[in-house]
Amino acid sequence: MPSSGPIVRHARREDVPTILELIRELAEYERLLDQVEATEEKLMATIAFAPSDAPHVSTTGLPQTEPTSPSKPARCLIIFTPAGLPAGIALYFYNYSTWRARPGIYLEDLYVKQSERKNGYGKRLLVELAKEVVAMQAGRLEWSVLKWNEPSIKFYESIGAKMMSEWVGMRVDGEGLTKLASLLD
Amino acid sequence: MPSSGPIVRHARREDVPTILELIRELAEYERLLDQVEATEEKLMATIAFAPSDAPHVSTTGLPQTEPTSPSKPARCLIIFTPAGLPAGIALYFYNYSTWRARPGIYLEDLYVKQSERKNGYGKRLLVELAKEVVAMQAGRLEWSVLKWNEPSIKFYESIGAKMMSEWVGMRVDGEGLTKLASLLD
Repeated sequence: MPSSGPIVRHARREDVPTILELIRELAEYERLLDQVEATEEKLMATIAFAPSDAPHVSTTGLPQTEPTSPSKPARCLIIFTPAGLPAGIALYFYNYSTWRARPGIYLEDLYVKQSERKNGYGKRLLVELAKEVVAMQAGRLEWSVLKWNEPSIKFYESIGAKMMSEWVGMRVDGEGLTKLASLLD
Repeated sequence: MPSSGPIVRHARREDVPTILELIRELAEYERLLDQVEATEEKLMATIAFAPSDAPHVSTTGLPQTEPTSPSKPARCLIIFTPAGLPAGIALYFYNYSTWRARPGIYLEDLYVKQSERKNGYGKRLLVELAKEVVAMQAGRLEWSVLKWNEPSIKFYESIGAKMMSEWVGMRVDGEGLTKLASLLD
């Protein structure tokens, strides 16, 4: 009997146009579209893809994609509607907790198309990532959210996430990065 | 002529007792010592080490350690005083920017021993990481800081870091994680 629910699987090379479309939609929603430098070529080079004949995500197994590496650190889950249309993505990588000396998963971006909201697809993607964290005996599932995005924060708290309010992120990029790299030369 | 400055290199397996000692000192400084679950065995299993005969960090090259992987995502730099004593560590992993479709480096922990402060060792470790970001043609060097740690924030801003005040981190761990993983079962 075919499943009547959504299908979640790891992204394949042929999904790249869909991934880019969803990234651009997310950037527009976050009011950051002018910052998107992603192209199909760049995504192709930096995501660890699943082979085209890979099985869907299992409830207990670990994902089977190309190996991750420093230059290809990302994995990507895609969720499809029961009719087979792409509805959302979760782009993630593996982080590390020094206190625990254990890896974890950091969800870099989660996006569900506006037209596919309220169907539980975002929750389903988070559940799949939590399953992977548990299956790999890692310690944490983490991500960041824009402080003004109250609907998302409420949703995340409803599924058990805690806000890490005592920490703030720091970033060096662009000219600051090349300057820092040569600071002691 | 031998160098009279500090030496920075990637951690080797034999450095693990030193790494654990420094992690515990850092946790004490951040008032989080009760949260440290790291052991020598766990560190051994989760850090991608350099071989014992590896060269020191070069100014242009990329580090040569074991391959990173989801279960072994971390790399670790150690800095030694000119007299050869361990003075500090930088534990890091590779993250990903969806907007840029490029990897980056996330510095999970930076620590310089209290007795070795004011010698520029922290800055030197950050410079080495910035060099690696540039060498791997990645986009960003990022980390987090406790909001009450004003001396560190001032130092980070002085070397070109921007505070990402508009974002807040979310985390699911412990019981919340197993609950989330089975939410749709």
